[in-house]
Amino acid sequence: MLMKGYGNVAAKVERTDPDLLDRLRVAGVATVHEAMGRTGLLDARLRPIFPAAVAGGALTCLVPPGDNWMIHVALEQARPGDILVVSPTSPCTDGYFGDLLAMSAAAKGIIGLIIDAGVRDVSTLREMQFPVWSRCISAQGTVKETLGDVQFPLVCAGQLINPGDAIVADEDGVCVVPRALAAEVADRAEARASAEEAKRARYAAGELSLDINEMRDRLARKGLRYL
Amino acid sequence: MLMKGYGNVAAKVERTDPDLLDRLRVAGVATVHEAMGRTGLLDARLRPIFPAAVAGGALTCLVPPGDNWMIHVALEQARPGDILVVSPTSPCTDGYFGDLLAMSAAAKGIIGLIIDAGVRDVSTLREMQFPVWSRCISAQGTVKETLGDVQFPLVCAGQLINPGDAIVADEDGVCVVPRALAAEVADRAEARASAEEAKRARYAAGELSLDINEMRDRLARKGLRYL
Amino acid sequence: MLMKGYGNVAAKVERTDPDLLDRLRVAGVATVHEAMGRTGLLDARLRPIFPAAVAGGALTCLVPPGDNWMIHVALEQARPGDILVVSPTSPCTDGYFGDLLAMSAAAKGIIGLIIDAGVRDVSTLREMQFPVWSRCISAQGTVKETLGDVQFPLVCAGQLINPGDAIVADEDGVCVVPRALAAEVADRAEARASAEEAKRARYAAGELSLDINEMRDRLARKGLRYL
Amino acid sequence: MLMKGYGNVAAKVERTDPDLLDRLRVAGVATVHEAMGRTGLLDARLRPIFPAAVAGGALTCLVPPGDNWMIHVALEQARPGDILVVSPTSPCTDGYFGDLLAMSAAAKGIIGLIIDAGVRDVSTLREMQFPVWSRCISAQGTVKETLGDVQFPLVCAGQLINPGDAIVADEDGVCVVPRALAAEVADRAEARASAEEAKRARYAAGELSLDINEMRDRLARKGLRYL
Amino acid sequence: MLMKGYGNVAAKVERTDPDLLDRLRVAGVATVHEAMGRTGLLDARLRPIFPAAVAGGALTCLVPPGDNWMIHVALEQARPGDILVVSPTSPCTDGYFGDLLAMSAAAKGIIGLIIDAGVRDVSTLREMQFPVWSRCISAQGTVKETLGDVQFPLVCAGQLINPGDAIVADEDGVCVVPRALAAEVADRAEARASAEEAKRARYAAGELSLDINEMRDRLARKGLRYL
Amino acid sequence: MLMKGYGNVAAKVERTDPDLLDRLRVAGVATVHEAMGRTGLLDARLRPIFPAAVAGGALTCLVPPGDNWMIHVALEQARPGDILVVSPTSPCTDGYFGDLLAMSAAAKGIIGLIIDAGVRDVSTLREMQFPVWSRCISAQGTVKETLGDVQFPLVCAGQLINPGDAIVADEDGVCVVPRALAAEVADRAEARASAEEAKRARYAAGELSLDINEMRDRLARKGLRYL
Repeated sequence: MLMKGYGNVAAKVERTDPDLLDRLRVAGVATVHEAMGRTGLLDARLRPIFPAAVAGGALTCLVPPGDNWMIHVALEQARPGDILVVSPTSPCTDGYFGDLLAMSAAAKGIIGLIIDAGVRDVSTLREMQFPVWSRCISAQGTVKETLGDVQFPLVCAGQLINPGDAIVADEDGVCVVPRALAAEVADRAEARASAEEAKRARYAAGELSLDINEMRDRLARKGLRYL
Repeated sequence: MLMKGYGNVAAKVERTDPDLLDRLRVAGVATVHEAMGRTGLLDARLRPIFPAAVAGGALTCLVPPGDNWMIHVALEQARPGDILVVSPTSPCTDGYFGDLLAMSAAAKGIIGLIIDAGVRDVSTLREMQFPVWSRCISAQGTVKETLGDVQFPLVCAGQLINPGDAIVADEDGVCVVPRALAAEVADRAEARASAEEAKRARYAAGELSLDINEMRDRLARKGLRYL
Repeated sequence: MLMKGYGNVAAKVERTDPDLLDRLRVAGVATVHEAMGRTGLLDARLRPIFPAAVAGGALTCLVPPGDNWMIHVALEQARPGDILVVSPTSPCTDGYFGDLLAMSAAAKGIIGLIIDAGVRDVSTLREMQFPVWSRCISAQGTVKETLGDVQFPLVCAGQLINPGDAIVADEDGVCVVPRALAAEVADRAEARASAEEAKRARYAAGELSLDINEMRDRLARKGLRYL
Repeated sequence: MLMKGYGNVAAKVERTDPDLLDRLRVAGVATVHEAMGRTGLLDARLRPIFPAAVAGGALTCLVPPGDNWMIHVALEQARPGDILVVSPTSPCTDGYFGDLLAMSAAAKGIIGLIIDAGVRDVSTLREMQFPVWSRCISAQGTVKETLGDVQFPLVCAGQLINPGDAIVADEDGVCVVPRALAAEVADRAEARASAEEAKRARYAAGELSLDINEMRDRLARKGLRYL
Repeated sequence: MLMKGYGNVAAKVERTDPDLLDRLRVAGVATVHEAMGRTGLLDARLRPIFPAAVAGGALTCLVPPGDNWMIHVALEQARPGDILVVSPTSPCTDGYFGDLLAMSAAAKGIIGLIIDAGVRDVSTLREMQFPVWSRCISAQGTVKETLGDVQFPLVCAGQLINPGDAIVADEDGVCVVPRALAAEVADRAEARASAEEAKRARYAAGELSLDINEMRDRLARKGLRYL
Repeated sequence: MLMKGYGNVAAKVERTDPDLLDRLRVAGVATVHEAMGRTGLLDARLRPIFPAAVAGGALTCLVPPGDNWMIHVALEQARPGDILVVSPTSPCTDGYFGDLLAMSAAAKGIIGLIIDAGVRDVSTLREMQFPVWSRCISAQGTVKETLGDVQFPLVCAGQLINPGDAIVADEDGVCVVPRALAAEVADRAEARASAEEAKRARYAAGELSLDINEMRDRLARKGLRYL
């Protein structure tokens, strides 16, 4: 008997170090994604309901279509600095999350929501400055009848997310950094940002990346022709 | 001979009481939708072109694809406080409605537009503060050749809408309340809002909905396991 | 041997006259599209990352999926006032363009980007006020391995665009005006705008387009019935 | 108290006359849709899982997302010749219906299924020759927890369907004919088919519709130019 | 006055040589597309209504949304061996083409239809063996009110098509070959097919393309690691 | 240094036992998915190019958009009975796989392809009876420039797949069974199939699932009303 089925809560989850989270947030999604070798980016269908930038530990929550019961279960597992990550077991656009859940989540220290489904009460969420990246905005109500899982690995918008992984989200989208890689990725991201910074003045002065990055020879060998 | 075909305008239409409309607008789409037993919500593909919240009587207008002639016919049927509801007879993304129609609509007392198709001149509409919920923004022009219907029941974004029904729209989407139910729905929505208000302080203080709403026993009976 | 294959840069391209571009920008996309007989509009899936209005000469760039190398090649061909127009050879949502490319593009006088794919670093692009109309926002990185074309005719979001054509873009979308037609279209657009201006006061005063545009007879002949 | 909420079964429903159904099936969806003045067609996303042509009385069933309980309730209400029409309360692609339900439905005399969601066991359904028009094919399982409605009016794939209405479905899609119009529509459809039949030989002989239907004058008046 | 507007028919159009068309049909879409340097492929949303393979000269027809009048005009311009190519001026899924038009088209020698919209009467079209590649199947009827163009260049499913260009279509999709390139493309396609043929026995015998095409060194230089 | 980057091939992979694979294939996707507690189903966008049913060990291959080089690398890692599972690093519809690769794959013992992208040469693949489940059919050619991974865990169409996992695919879709669970799932699937078999005669005789599965009491307690 190995199959676990739905209906499980893993209470003990290691989180990513807060200092690393902070460094990842500052680096931003695009740089972090590059620093990880162009891995970890969630599907671009997830969009912020207002501009924001956060990084936190993944509090994962798998939910049935049209049923938000497990989100209520998940909130109890929150630690300050967590980001709630919600994925439905089949595609769904319902509004799983609104102002009361946001108030409760914020009270437990949750700093944002990533959901591959819908949210509602978005004008209140914006007033509260509770950041959300969602598939859509929908007022469609949900029921509380069927179990899912809390704090188990899940796939959200095309990426595998383990509980406690680092989630980085800003206007460019959402990226997951495995907890064990967070330090290495933060280092690489900062190195990348520094390298870009060094070139910024040259670009602003009108130098071309063809020259800055020495692309002309390779382009010619590939067969580029100027007519 | 029972079939009516296209090309009809129903001139006499009862509207929803303005006081009820006001109460529904204050309650908001998410609460109204819940108060109706989770019915009445239009598809989430309809999005506002700028944040707004309105409630009004439905002035319904069925249009052919790529043809906005009937909108011109509909404007004559407007009464102050109406919301124009436009649905194409087959899927279409063209820009049926722009600044001149908005100016004309506003002059007739129309307070907003719900359209399962495109609109244009959106920067002007925003300056005019004429609220629109649409499927998309598109400058694609339309012709004036083929008839539809005005003030007949239609399906818009998945919901049946009768002329004079209450339309409630805000950042969460668009909901239709049948005219005969508007009073009951307003009462229920306000009761629901009060009940939520009462719990708000408890959520803010960190109490969980698991406890506030006594979910733990039922979750256990469903088989929830903490590992 | 007539086939050109990919990997070509056409260095000599005639641009649209700057005065005409300015007149087209003022007229706006919806009016320009109407003035061209309802032609030239790119698909409505292209949306601005922030509200803006520009008109410029098309600097066209055909790119492979997930490969932005040719954008680097294209920047060298820019002239002040150009708008970069990027289309992938097959559907792609990757983030081809970010802050460094925007800085470089701006330094070469490029005033905006039209791309039937993704962009990233959008918060920085907004701070820089570098306007972009794109299919989506995505941090997904791209490679530099495969050639495309620069300054050759291409299809972008459903419209044929020749290098040097006038591109007009605002909140309503993006329109292309063939260079040879720009003067005629600017004239027609201004005539149309004047004609609309003349009617504006009548609409604002509550007159109906049914009367202003004398539609009633034709509607009756088509069979419109008032019940 | 007017609101009904979910959880209702209307046991008494008048069906469309079987002879009329047969005449509508023979006419086919495209002709019936034209005979109704181009109304009644369900969205083209509904496709047959194998080629078939049926007409029957609508046995309507509104279901929550991911929950097929009400289909079990609906089967008891079936009368021989019915077509089961299933619509979810919010968009869903789960597999609500498989071989056991098909066997049960067939045993109760149901002759087909229209569902704006998914079905499974399609190879068995094809062997059984149980016709289905669905939004997709998906093995995704559903739960039995939440009520919907049986034999109440619903919107399915964009059309209002009343219990007992005539449903006509073939390779071209699905059309609903209100019960009260079925006789008139059958007459008109047959008249239309006869008129087309009369012209068929002329088309086959190479005569053009421009001449058969005397379009040339009207085209010229609209401004058609031969260059 | 340069703008042409809609409503034009170009009566004189050069077609691609029938022998070349035959050679392109035999080569097939995938090989022709490769032989053109991976250009010319229409969007994959166009699918055959039954398996078929044809090549013919493009008879182009631009139509308004929901209006098939110009198809009637186009049929008069047909020459034996033509393929009718229909594109709407804005996205549309209506059923523009059915059995009567197919009968008329076949009588004029048209050997197939490419349409970025819907078709109907598909069971009859299959019986007639009239091949169609379409965006969808829909019974939705269209009107005859507004002009488009016949035998002018148009964009269909993302590709520019000039009247008389070679259209090649099979189960893999649809490809356009500019008339002036048809001979060169046919030569290259046959060379490519021969080259592939020569390798076929080696693949069947279990040899790997890594060896047949000598990829191992280049993969190693790119950094491929076997763990 | 923990980050692996792209460009890796894991040569040693344990496969699922062939007898278990055979039992899973016989049970079919819908039953296997239910037996796993409704987990493991890939997104319904993957459809077979012709009806088929297979089960095999996952040979995983992560590919860049528009680049099929790694598929060539993957074939060398095949063992008889494997199913090739291909997922792009960002959404792509290009035709990664055609007749030559199919011939090579079949020669290495691969029994099918699951790909969240496009395939081509589908008429030849059908003649060869090489089964494919794909997102689309597209002739669009790909390049060989950029590395991915072979035999590493990946997400394909929303499900995590580990090398060597059991892949089950038929007309209902595609399901993944983790290797360690294959025996338990096969047992449960067969038990489920037996239980359904036992009820089949009762359904065929017209008994209702309401009675067979004793649903009436629970429905009544939920509030079901017969009007």
